[in-house]
Amino acid sequence: MSADNKHIASVFDRDLEAIQALIMKMGGLVEANIKDAAQALEERDVELAEKVRDSDRVIDELEEEVNEEAARLIALRSPTAGDLRTVLTVMKISTNLERCGDYAKNLAKRTGVLVNMRPIEGSATSIRRMAREVEEMLRLALDAYLQRDADLANQVRHRDLDVDQMYNALFREFLTYMMEDPRNITACMHLHFIAKNIERMGDHATSIAEQVIYLVTGDMPGDPRPKGDVTSQDALDMEED
Amino acid sequence: MSADNKHIASVFDRDLEAIQALIMKMGGLVEANIKDAAQALEERDVELAEKVRDSDRVIDELEEEVNEEAARLIALRSPTAGDLRTVLTVMKISTNLERCGDYAKNLAKRTGVLVNMRPIEGSATSIRRMAREVEEMLRLALDAYLQRDADLANQVRHRDLDVDQMYNALFREFLTYMMEDPRNITACMHLHFIAKNIERMGDHATSIAEQVIYLVTGDMPGDPRPKGDVTSQDALDMEED
Repeated sequence: MSADNKHIASVFDRDLEAIQALIMKMGGLVEANIKDAAQALEERDVELAEKVRDSDRVIDELEEEVNEEAARLIALRSPTAGDLRTVLTVMKISTNLERCGDYAKNLAKRTGVLVNMRPIEGSATSIRRMAREVEEMLRLALDAYLQRDADLANQVRHRDLDVDQMYNALFREFLTYMMEDPRNITACMHLHFIAKNIERMGDHATSIAEQVIYLVTGDMPGDPRPKGDVTSQDALDMEED
Repeated sequence: MSADNKHIASVFDRDLEAIQALIMKMGGLVEANIKDAAQALEERDVELAEKVRDSDRVIDELEEEVNEEAARLIALRSPTAGDLRTVLTVMKISTNLERCGDYAKNLAKRTGVLVNMRPIEGSATSIRRMAREVEEMLRLALDAYLQRDADLANQVRHRDLDVDQMYNALFREFLTYMMEDPRNITACMHLHFIAKNIERMGDHATSIAEQVIYLVTGDMPGDPRPKGDVTSQDALDMEED
Protein backbone atom coordinates (compact mmCIF):
# COMPACT_ATOMS: atom_id res chain seq x y z
CA MET A 1 0.00 0.00 0.00
CA SER A 2 1.40 3.39 -0.94
CA ALA A 3 1.74 6.07 1.72
CA ASP A 4 -0.99 7.96 -0.09
CA ASN A 5 -3.43 5.06 -0.01
CA LYS A 6 -2.72 4.49 3.62
CA HIS A 7 -3.49 8.10 4.33
CA ILE A 8 -6.81 7.81 2.51
CA ALA A 9 -7.67 4.59 4.34
CA SER A 10 -7.04 6.09 7.75
CA VAL A 11 -9.17 9.15 6.96
CA PHE A 12 -11.97 6.82 5.93
CA ASP A 13 -11.57 4.79 9.14
CA ARG A 14 -11.62 7.90 11.27
CA ASP A 15 -14.81 9.14 9.60
CA LEU A 16 -16.40 5.71 9.90
CA GLU A 17 -15.54 5.57 13.58
CA ALA A 18 -17.26 8.90 14.12
CA ILE A 19 -20.42 7.52 12.49
CA GLN A 20 -20.18 4.31 14.48
CA ALA A 21 -19.99 6.40 17.64
CA LEU A 22 -23.31 7.99 16.63
CA ILE A 23 -24.80 4.52 16.10
CA MET A 24 -23.65 3.40 19.54
CA LYS A 25 -25.12 6.55 21.07
CA MET A 26 -28.41 5.83 19.28
CA GLY A 27 -28.28 2.22 20.49
CA GLY A 28 -27.76 3.32 24.10
CA LEU A 29 -30.69 5.73 23.93
CA VAL A 30 -32.98 3.17 22.29
CA GLU A 31 -32.11 0.53 24.91
CA ALA A 32 -32.74 3.05 27.70
CA ASN A 33 -36.08 4.05 26.14
CA ILE A 34 -37.24 0.44 25.83
CA LYS A 35 -36.34 -0.16 29.46
CA ASP A 36 -37.94 3.06 30.69
CA ALA A 37 -41.08 2.58 28.60
CA ALA A 38 -41.62 -0.93 30.02
CA GLN A 39 -40.95 0.31 33.54
CA ALA A 40 -43.34 3.23 33.06
CA LEU A 41 -46.04 0.79 31.98
CA GLU A 42 -45.47 -1.54 34.92
CA GLU A 43 -45.35 1.23 37.50
CA ARG A 44 -48.02 3.33 35.75
CA ASP A 45 -45.52 6.17 35.78
CA VAL A 46 -46.81 8.84 33.40
CA GLU A 47 -43.81 11.13 33.93
CA LEU A 48 -41.33 8.45 32.93
CA ALA A 49 -43.47 7.69 29.87
CA GLU A 50 -43.35 11.38 28.98
CA LYS A 51 -39.57 11.35 29.28
CA VAL A 52 -39.39 8.47 26.76
CA ARG A 53 -41.50 10.41 24.29
CA ASP A 54 -39.22 13.45 24.58
CA SER A 55 -36.06 11.41 24.27
CA ASP A 56 -37.24 9.84 21.02
CA ARG A 57 -36.67 13.16 19.27
CA VAL A 58 -32.95 12.86 19.99
CA ILE A 59 -32.93 9.38 18.43
CA ASP A 60 -34.63 10.72 15.29
CA GLU A 61 -32.07 13.51 15.02
CA LEU A 62 -29.22 11.03 15.42
CA GLU A 63 -30.62 8.93 12.60
CA GLU A 64 -30.67 11.95 10.30
CA GLU A 65 -27.11 12.77 11.33
CA VAL A 66 -25.95 9.20 10.56
CA ASN A 67 -27.59 9.36 7.13
CA GLU A 68 -26.04 12.72 6.33
CA GLU A 69 -22.59 11.75 7.56
CA ALA A 70 -22.68 8.40 5.77
CA ALA A 71 -23.70 10.04 2.48
CA ARG A 72 -20.93 12.60 2.96
CA LEU A 73 -18.41 9.87 3.68
CA ILE A 74 -19.35 8.00 0.50
CA ALA A 75 -19.25 11.17 -1.60
CA LEU A 76 -15.92 12.39 -0.20
CA ARG A 77 -13.96 9.15 0.15
CA SER A 78 -15.47 6.97 -2.61
CA PRO A 79 -15.01 3.82 -0.52
CA THR A 80 -14.45 0.57 -2.38
CA ALA A 81 -16.53 -2.60 -2.15
CA GLY A 82 -15.92 -3.73 1.45
CA ASP A 83 -15.82 -0.27 3.00
CA LEU A 84 -18.86 0.81 1.02
CA ARG A 85 -20.78 -2.20 2.27
CA THR A 86 -19.88 -1.21 5.82
CA VAL A 87 -21.19 2.33 5.35
CA LEU A 88 -24.43 1.08 3.78
CA THR A 89 -24.81 -1.39 6.67
CA VAL A 90 -24.40 1.43 9.17
CA MET A 91 -27.19 3.34 7.41
CA LYS A 92 -29.47 0.31 7.62
CA ILE A 93 -28.67 -0.24 11.29
CA SER A 94 -29.58 3.36 12.07
CA THR A 95 -32.96 2.83 10.36
CA ASN A 96 -33.55 -0.30 12.46
CA LEU A 97 -32.68 1.59 15.64
CA GLU A 98 -34.90 4.51 14.74
CA ARG A 99 -37.84 2.14 14.21
CA CYS A 100 -37.20 0.54 17.62
CA GLY A 101 -37.22 4.02 19.11
CA ASP A 102 -40.61 4.68 17.51
CA TYR A 103 -42.01 1.49 19.01
CA ALA A 104 -40.71 2.45 22.46
CA LYS A 105 -42.31 5.86 22.06
CA ASN A 106 -45.57 4.22 21.06
CA LEU A 107 -45.38 2.02 24.16
CA ALA A 108 -44.93 5.15 26.27
CA LYS A 109 -47.89 6.80 24.55
CA ARG A 110 -50.16 3.86 25.26
CA THR A 111 -49.07 3.91 28.89
CA GLY A 112 -50.61 7.36 29.12
CA VAL A 113 -53.89 5.82 27.97
CA LEU A 114 -53.68 2.60 29.99
CA VAL A 115 -53.26 4.33 33.36
CA ASN A 116 -56.88 5.43 33.00
CA MET A 117 -58.13 1.85 32.65
CA ARG A 118 -58.30 -0.95 35.14
CA PRO A 119 -55.13 -3.03 35.01
CA ILE A 120 -54.94 -6.45 33.37
CA GLU A 121 -53.33 -8.66 35.99
CA GLY A 122 -49.73 -9.67 35.37
CA SER A 123 -49.61 -8.24 31.87
CA ALA A 124 -47.20 -5.38 32.54
CA THR A 125 -44.73 -7.73 34.23
CA SER A 126 -44.79 -10.13 31.28
CA ILE A 127 -44.35 -7.21 28.90
CA ARG A 128 -41.41 -5.93 30.91
CA ARG A 129 -39.75 -9.35 30.74
CA MET A 130 -40.22 -9.39 26.98
CA ALA A 131 -38.85 -5.85 26.68
CA ARG A 132 -35.76 -6.84 28.69
CA GLU A 133 -35.09 -9.70 26.29
CA VAL A 134 -35.36 -7.42 23.25
CA GLU A 135 -33.17 -4.77 24.85
CA GLU A 136 -30.51 -7.44 25.41
CA MET A 137 -30.83 -8.65 21.80
CA LEU A 138 -30.26 -5.12 20.53
CA ARG A 139 -27.20 -4.70 22.73
CA LEU A 140 -25.73 -7.99 21.51
CA ALA A 141 -26.51 -7.20 17.87
CA LEU A 142 -24.62 -3.91 18.14
CA ASP A 143 -21.74 -5.68 19.91
CA ALA A 144 -21.70 -8.23 17.09
CA TYR A 145 -21.45 -5.36 14.62
CA LEU A 146 -18.58 -3.65 16.46
CA GLN A 147 -16.67 -6.91 16.81
CA ARG A 148 -17.68 -8.23 13.38
CA ASP A 149 -18.76 -11.38 15.23
CA ALA A 150 -21.01 -13.57 13.07
CA ASP A 151 -21.43 -16.19 15.82
CA LEU A 152 -22.75 -13.64 18.25
CA ALA A 153 -25.04 -12.30 15.52
CA ASN A 154 -26.36 -15.82 15.01
CA GLN A 155 -27.12 -16.11 18.71
CA VAL A 156 -29.22 -12.95 18.45
CA ARG A 157 -31.15 -14.46 15.53
CA HIS A 158 -31.97 -17.52 17.58
CA ARG A 159 -32.98 -15.57 20.67
CA ASP A 160 -35.71 -14.02 18.57
CA LEU A 161 -37.52 -17.35 18.88
CA ASP A 162 -37.95 -16.73 22.62
CA VAL A 163 -39.44 -13.31 21.95
CA ASP A 164 -41.86 -14.78 19.43
CA GLN A 165 -42.93 -17.37 21.98
CA MET A 166 -43.41 -14.75 24.68
CA TYR A 167 -45.57 -12.79 22.26
CA ASN A 168 -47.70 -15.80 21.37
CA ALA A 169 -48.28 -16.60 25.05
CA LEU A 170 -49.27 -13.01 25.79
CA PHE A 171 -51.62 -12.88 22.84
CA ARG A 172 -53.50 -15.95 24.04
CA GLU A 173 -53.69 -14.46 27.51
CA PHE A 174 -55.16 -11.19 26.24
CA LEU A 175 -57.69 -13.04 24.13
CA THR A 176 -58.87 -14.93 27.21
CA TYR A 177 -59.27 -11.71 29.20
CA MET A 178 -61.26 -10.16 26.37
CA MET A 179 -63.59 -13.12 26.04
CA GLU A 180 -64.11 -13.22 29.80
CA ASP A 181 -65.21 -9.63 30.14
CA PRO A 182 -65.89 -7.12 27.37
CA ARG A 183 -64.80 -4.32 29.69
CA ASN A 184 -61.26 -5.63 29.27
CA ILE A 185 -61.34 -5.29 25.49
CA THR A 186 -59.96 -1.79 25.06
CA ALA A 187 -57.10 -2.24 27.53
CA CYS A 188 -56.23 -5.61 26.02
CA MET A 189 -56.15 -4.13 22.54
CA HIS A 190 -53.56 -1.61 23.71
CA LEU A 191 -51.56 -4.24 25.57
CA HIS A 192 -51.67 -6.50 22.58
CA PHE A 193 -50.32 -3.70 20.39
CA ILE A 194 -47.56 -3.12 22.89
CA ALA A 195 -46.61 -6.80 22.87
CA LYS A 196 -46.69 -6.84 19.07
CA ASN A 197 -44.47 -3.76 18.91
CA ILE A 198 -41.92 -5.32 21.24
CA GLU A 199 -41.97 -8.44 19.09
CA ARG A 200 -41.24 -6.15 16.13
CA MET A 201 -38.30 -4.61 17.96
CA GLY A 202 -36.97 -8.16 18.20
CA ASP A 203 -37.33 -8.44 14.42
CA HIS A 204 -35.29 -5.25 14.02
CA ALA A 205 -32.57 -6.58 16.33
CA THR A 206 -32.59 -9.74 14.22
CA SER A 207 -32.32 -7.66 11.06
CA ILE A 208 -29.23 -5.91 12.49
CA ALA A 209 -27.76 -9.33 13.34
CA GLU A 210 -28.41 -10.55 9.79
CA GLN A 211 -26.68 -7.52 8.32
CA VAL A 212 -23.67 -8.23 10.51
CA ILE A 213 -23.59 -11.81 9.22
CA TYR A 214 -23.78 -10.51 5.67
CA LEU A 215 -20.99 -8.02 6.34
CA VAL A 216 -18.72 -10.67 7.85
CA THR A 217 -19.48 -13.71 5.68
CA GLY A 218 -20.80 -12.17 2.47
CA ASP A 219 -23.89 -14.38 2.77
CA MET A 220 -27.27 -13.20 3.91
CA PRO A 221 -28.63 -15.77 6.36
CA GLY A 222 -31.48 -16.66 4.09
CA ASP A 223 -34.58 -18.68 4.45
CA PRO A 224 -35.40 -20.56 6.44
CA ARG A 225 -35.12 -17.83 9.00
CA PRO A 226 -35.93 -19.25 12.40
CA LYS A 227 -39.55 -18.70 13.26
CA GLY A 228 -40.90 -18.97 16.80
CA ASP A 229 -44.35 -19.07 15.49
CA VAL A 230 -45.09 -22.58 14.30
CA THR A 231 -48.83 -22.06 14.20
CA SER A 232 -49.11 -19.91 11.14
CA GLN A 233 -52.47 -21.33 10.11
CA ASP A 234 -53.74 -21.22 13.64
CA ALA A 235 -56.70 -18.95 14.23
CA LEU A 236 -54.80 -17.43 17.13
CA ASP A 237 -51.73 -16.66 15.13
CA MET A 238 -51.08 -12.96 14.83
CA GLU A 239 -47.62 -12.94 13.34
CA GLU A 240 -46.83 -10.20 10.92
CA ASP A 241 -44.56 -11.15 8.08
CA MET B 1 -17.90 19.31 -19.29
CA SER B 2 -15.12 17.29 -20.86
CA ALA B 3 -15.99 14.48 -23.25
CA ASP B 4 -14.71 12.11 -20.60
CA ASN B 5 -16.98 13.49 -17.89
CA LYS B 6 -19.93 13.39 -20.21
CA HIS B 7 -19.19 9.78 -20.94
CA ILE B 8 -19.08 8.99 -17.22
CA ALA B 9 -22.32 10.85 -16.60
CA SER B 10 -24.21 8.96 -19.27
CA VAL B 11 -22.97 5.60 -18.03
CA PHE B 12 -24.20 6.55 -14.56
CA ASP B 13 -27.57 7.58 -15.97
CA ARG B 14 -27.92 4.34 -17.87
CA ASP B 15 -27.13 2.29 -14.75
CA LEU B 16 -29.50 4.39 -12.66
CA GLU B 17 -32.26 3.88 -15.22
CA ALA B 18 -31.79 0.13 -14.99
CA ILE B 19 -32.22 0.32 -11.22
CA GLN B 20 -35.22 2.58 -11.55
CA ALA B 21 -36.77 0.03 -13.89
CA LEU B 22 -36.41 -2.55 -11.10
CA ILE B 23 -38.09 -0.15 -8.67
CA MET B 24 -40.99 0.37 -11.05
CA LYS B 25 -41.33 -3.38 -11.50
CA MET B 26 -41.38 -3.77 -7.70
CA GLY B 27 -43.96 -1.00 -7.44
CA GLY B 28 -46.20 -2.69 -10.01
CA LEU B 29 -46.02 -6.02 -8.18
CA VAL B 30 -46.67 -4.44 -4.79
CA GLU B 31 -49.70 -2.55 -6.12
CA ALA B 32 -51.06 -5.74 -7.72
CA ASN B 33 -50.51 -7.67 -4.47
CA ILE B 34 -52.32 -5.07 -2.38
CA LYS B 35 -55.24 -5.15 -4.82
CA ASP B 36 -55.33 -8.96 -5.00
CA ALA B 37 -54.97 -9.39 -1.25
CA ALA B 38 -57.91 -7.07 -0.57
CA GLN B 39 -59.98 -8.80 -3.25
CA ALA B 40 -59.11 -12.22 -1.85
CA LEU B 41 -60.30 -11.08 1.57
CA GLU B 42 -63.56 -9.67 0.23
CA GLU B 43 -64.34 -12.70 -1.94
CA ARG B 44 -62.92 -15.18 0.57
CA ASP B 45 -60.75 -16.45 -2.27
CA VAL B 46 -58.04 -18.64 -0.73
CA GLU B 47 -56.36 -19.36 -4.06
CA LEU B 48 -55.89 -15.69 -4.86
CA ALA B 49 -54.52 -15.18 -1.35
CA GLU B 50 -52.04 -17.99 -1.97
CA LYS B 51 -50.96 -16.31 -5.21
CA VAL B 52 -50.16 -13.10 -3.30
CA ARG B 53 -48.01 -15.03 -0.84
CA ASP B 54 -46.04 -16.62 -3.66
CA SER B 55 -45.60 -13.38 -5.54
CA ASP B 56 -44.09 -11.69 -2.48
CA ARG B 57 -40.94 -13.75 -2.97
CA VAL B 58 -40.33 -11.99 -6.28
CA ILE B 59 -40.65 -8.62 -4.55
CA ASP B 60 -38.10 -9.66 -1.92
CA GLU B 61 -35.69 -10.77 -4.63
CA LEU B 62 -36.13 -7.49 -6.49
CA GLU B 63 -35.31 -5.57 -3.32
CA GLU B 64 -32.05 -7.51 -2.94
CA GLU B 65 -31.27 -6.85 -6.58
CA VAL B 66 -31.86 -3.11 -6.16
CA ASN B 67 -29.57 -3.05 -3.13
CA GLU B 68 -26.82 -4.96 -4.90
CA GLU B 69 -27.05 -2.89 -8.07
CA ALA B 70 -27.15 0.39 -6.17
CA ALA B 71 -24.08 -0.56 -4.12
CA ARG B 72 -22.31 -1.59 -7.31
CA LEU B 73 -23.26 1.68 -8.99
CA ILE B 74 -21.86 3.70 -6.09
CA ALA B 75 -18.66 1.64 -5.98
CA LEU B 76 -18.05 1.75 -9.74
CA ARG B 77 -19.13 5.27 -10.60
CA SER B 78 -18.42 7.21 -7.38
CA PRO B 79 -21.40 9.49 -7.97
CA THR B 80 -21.16 13.01 -6.58
CA ALA B 81 -23.54 14.69 -4.17
CA GLY B 82 -26.79 14.93 -6.18
CA ASP B 83 -26.42 11.62 -8.00
CA LEU B 84 -25.40 9.87 -4.80
CA ARG B 85 -28.49 11.20 -3.06
CA THR B 86 -30.61 9.78 -5.87
CA VAL B 87 -29.06 6.32 -5.52
CA LEU B 88 -29.52 6.34 -1.74
CA THR B 89 -33.13 7.47 -2.24
CA VAL B 90 -33.73 4.57 -4.62
CA MET B 91 -32.43 2.17 -1.97
CA LYS B 92 -34.78 3.62 0.61
CA ILE B 93 -37.74 3.44 -1.76
CA SER B 94 -37.06 -0.23 -2.39
CA THR B 95 -37.11 -0.85 1.38
CA ASN B 96 -40.47 0.95 1.64
CA LEU B 97 -41.88 -1.13 -1.21
CA GLU B 98 -40.60 -4.37 0.27
CA ARG B 99 -42.31 -3.56 3.58
CA CYS B 100 -45.59 -2.86 1.76
CA GLY B 101 -45.20 -6.23 0.05
CA ASP B 102 -44.79 -7.89 3.45
CA TYR B 103 -47.98 -6.24 4.71
CA ALA B 104 -49.90 -7.41 1.63
CA LYS B 105 -48.57 -10.92 2.20
CA ASN B 106 -49.67 -10.75 5.82
CA LEU B 107 -53.14 -9.65 4.68
CA ALA B 108 -53.27 -12.68 2.38
CA LYS B 109 -52.16 -14.96 5.23
CA ARG B 110 -54.88 -13.70 7.53
CA THR B 111 -57.44 -14.22 4.76
CA GLY B 112 -56.59 -17.93 4.96
CA VAL B 113 -57.54 -17.81 8.64
CA LEU B 114 -60.58 -15.53 8.33
CA VAL B 115 -62.38 -17.75 5.78
CA ASN B 116 -62.88 -20.23 8.63
CA MET B 117 -64.68 -17.67 10.78
CA ARG B 118 -68.04 -16.06 10.43
CA PRO B 119 -67.76 -12.82 8.48
CA ILE B 120 -67.93 -9.39 10.08
CA GLU B 121 -70.51 -7.52 8.04
CA GLY B 122 -69.18 -4.85 5.70
CA SER B 123 -65.64 -5.03 6.99
CA ALA B 124 -64.01 -6.53 3.90
CA THR B 125 -65.57 -3.88 1.67
CA SER B 126 -64.29 -1.07 3.88
CA ILE B 127 -60.86 -2.68 3.94
CA ARG B 128 -60.86 -2.99 0.18
CA ARG B 129 -61.69 0.70 -0.16
CA MET B 130 -58.81 1.58 2.15
CA ALA B 131 -56.47 -0.71 0.22
CA ARG B 132 -57.45 0.97 -3.05
CA GLU B 133 -56.58 4.37 -1.60
CA VAL B 134 -53.16 3.15 -0.44
CA GLU B 135 -52.46 1.47 -3.78
CA GLU B 136 -53.20 4.78 -5.50
CA MET B 137 -50.93 6.67 -3.09
CA LEU B 138 -48.07 4.29 -3.84
CA ARG B 139 -48.58 4.72 -7.58
CA LEU B 140 -48.57 8.51 -7.27
CA ALA B 141 -45.52 8.49 -4.98
CA LEU B 142 -43.55 6.50 -7.56
CA ASP B 143 -44.79 8.82 -10.34
CA ALA B 144 -43.64 11.76 -8.23
CA TYR B 145 -40.22 10.14 -7.95
CA LEU B 146 -39.92 9.51 -11.70
CA GLN B 147 -41.03 13.04 -12.55
CA ARG B 148 -39.19 14.65 -9.61
CA ASP B 149 -42.53 16.29 -8.82
CA ALA B 150 -42.59 17.72 -5.28
CA ASP B 151 -46.17 18.99 -5.64
CA LEU B 152 -47.44 15.55 -6.50
CA ALA B 153 -45.43 14.13 -3.60
CA ASN B 154 -47.09 16.65 -1.29
CA GLN B 155 -50.52 15.51 -2.49
CA VAL B 156 -49.59 11.96 -1.49
CA ARG B 157 -48.60 13.15 1.98
CA HIS B 158 -51.96 14.81 2.43
CA ARG B 159 -53.94 11.84 1.16
CA ASP B 160 -52.48 9.86 4.02
CA LEU B 161 -54.90 11.78 6.24
CA ASP B 162 -57.82 10.03 4.53
CA VAL B 163 -56.24 6.64 5.15
CA ASP B 164 -55.72 7.47 8.81
CA GLN B 165 -59.37 8.47 9.09
CA MET B 166 -60.54 5.28 7.37
CA TYR B 167 -58.45 3.32 9.84
CA ASN B 168 -59.84 5.15 12.86
CA ALA B 169 -63.42 4.54 11.67
CA LEU B 170 -62.74 0.85 11.12
CA PHE B 171 -61.10 0.47 14.50
CA ARG B 172 -64.14 1.89 16.28
CA GLU B 173 -66.37 -0.41 14.24
CA PHE B 174 -64.37 -3.51 15.20
CA LEU B 175 -64.40 -2.52 18.85
CA THR B 176 -68.19 -2.30 18.74
CA TYR B 177 -68.50 -5.76 17.18
CA MET B 178 -66.18 -7.21 19.81
CA MET B 179 -68.09 -5.66 22.70
CA GLU B 180 -71.40 -6.85 21.23
CA ASP B 181 -70.44 -10.49 20.97
CA PRO B 182 -67.28 -12.16 22.26
CA ARG B 183 -67.49 -14.69 19.40
CA ASN B 184 -66.48 -11.81 17.11
CA ILE B 185 -63.27 -11.10 19.01
CA THR B 186 -60.81 -13.32 17.16
CA ALA B 187 -62.03 -12.33 13.69
CA CYS B 188 -62.02 -8.66 14.67
CA MET B 189 -58.47 -8.91 15.98
CA HIS B 190 -57.37 -10.20 12.59
CA LEU B 191 -59.36 -7.57 10.72
CA HIS B 192 -57.98 -4.89 12.95
CA PHE B 193 -54.44 -6.03 12.20
CA ILE B 194 -55.23 -5.95 8.52
CA ALA B 195 -56.56 -2.40 8.76
CA LYS B 196 -53.52 -1.35 10.77
CA ASN B 197 -51.19 -2.88 8.21
CA ILE B 198 -52.91 -1.06 5.37
CA GLU B 199 -52.60 2.15 7.34
CA ARG B 200 -48.87 1.39 7.64
CA MET B 201 -48.61 0.90 3.88
CA GLY B 202 -49.97 4.45 3.65
CA ASP B 203 -47.14 5.56 5.94
CA HIS B 204 -44.62 3.91 3.62
CA ALA B 205 -46.15 5.64 0.58
CA THR B 206 -45.88 8.88 2.54
CA SER B 207 -42.27 8.12 3.35
CA ILE B 208 -41.52 7.65 -0.36
CA ALA B 209 -43.25 10.97 -1.06
CA GLU B 210 -41.16 12.69 1.62
CA GLN B 211 -37.96 11.32 0.14
CA VAL B 212 -39.00 12.70 -3.25
CA ILE B 213 -39.56 16.11 -1.68
CA TYR B 214 -36.12 15.92 -0.07
CA LEU B 215 -34.55 14.89 -3.36
CA VAL B 216 -36.18 17.75 -5.26
CA THR B 217 -36.11 20.58 -2.72
CA GLY B 218 -33.25 19.56 -0.40
CA ASP B 219 -35.62 19.94 2.56
CA MET B 220 -37.20 17.08 4.43
CA PRO B 221 -40.86 17.96 5.00
CA GLY B 222 -40.39 18.01 8.74
CA ASP B 223 -42.70 18.22 11.63
CA PRO B 224 -45.47 18.89 11.78
CA ARG B 225 -46.21 16.01 9.50
CA PRO B 226 -49.92 15.91 8.83
CA LYS B 227 -51.66 13.55 11.21
CA GLY B 228 -55.09 12.18 10.55
CA ASP B 229 -55.35 11.09 14.09
CA VAL B 230 -56.21 14.06 16.23
CA THR B 231 -57.26 11.97 19.21
CA SER B 232 -53.87 10.84 20.43
CA GLN B 233 -54.91 10.82 24.08
CA ASP B 234 -58.19 9.17 23.29
CA ALA B 235 -58.65 5.71 24.77
CA LEU B 236 -59.66 4.50 21.33
CA ASP B 237 -56.60 5.80 19.63
CA MET B 238 -54.41 3.07 18.22
CA GLU B 239 -51.94 5.05 16.16
CA GLU B 240 -48.45 3.75 15.99
CA ASP B 241 -45.75 6.35 15.84
